[in-house]
Amino acid sequence: MTNQGRCFHYHDIPNEPFGDEAPGVKIRVLIDEGEDGSPYYVLRMIEIEPGGHTPYHSHPFEHENFVLTGRGYLTIADKKWLIGPGYVAYVPSGVPHMYECVGDEVFSFLCGIPASRLRGSNP
Amino acid sequence: MTNQGRCFHYHDIPNEPFGDEAPGVKIRVLIDEGEDGSPYYVLRMIEIEPGGHTPYHSHPFEHENFVLTGRGYLTIADKKWLIGPGYVAYVPSGVPHMYECVGDEVFSFLCGIPASRLRGSNP
Repeated sequence: MTNQGRCFHYHDIPNEPFGDEAPGVKIRVLIDEGEDGSPYYVLRMIEIEPGGHTPYHSHPFEHENFVLTGRGYLTIADKKWLIGPGYVAYVPSGVPHMYECVGDEVFSFLCGIPASRLRGSNP
Repeated sequence: MTNQGRCFHYHDIPNEPFGDEAPGVKIRVLIDEGEDGSPYYVLRMIEIEPGGHTPYHSHPFEHENFVLTGRGYLTIADKKWLIGPGYVAYVPSGVPHMYECVGDEVFSFLCGIPASRLRGSNP
């Protein structure tokens, strides 16, 4: 069947715990790769509860972020920003980074990554 | 110089008219491709004023959308949705589509596209 596109509210997508290494962090995969999805890029939404944070970690692919709600710290290598709705970030492949919720509101942001076949190699 | 990432507010990026074929439509390129940008995917923000709309058009690359403000119609081929904040859309390559602002508020959404070297060919 030809892919004819999709339109839905993000609430329609399950919100799954990210894992023990990221306390208070949940993820929704909004646009996946594959037959019904995107050939190049996967769109996810991350929600971090008050007190929650990702690990300080790196991996061989980049992130494209857009902040939706709340406030948080974004650390990229030796830089740290306090950010909120409307902030944009580009986290390059291989650079350590961390997201932390600040305050009492859920810190949520979009987080795009390349399709799996593109991860781990330079273009 | 190694790309060490970037973080900024979308207001820091100029808002440019899209062109005569898209009345009332402006675009900000938030994350570009190239040396300081992303290898695979370009993140843009589209803002459509009340009464504005894109053309009904198609092109050989996909869109990934997330609605930020306002309300609008999204048409993908023979389907039409009334959407607002929190809606997600995937518009496949080669499928005609159109965005229209509905009501008195600016209809704004993120609109990702592949880097130019990936446009126009299937993966």
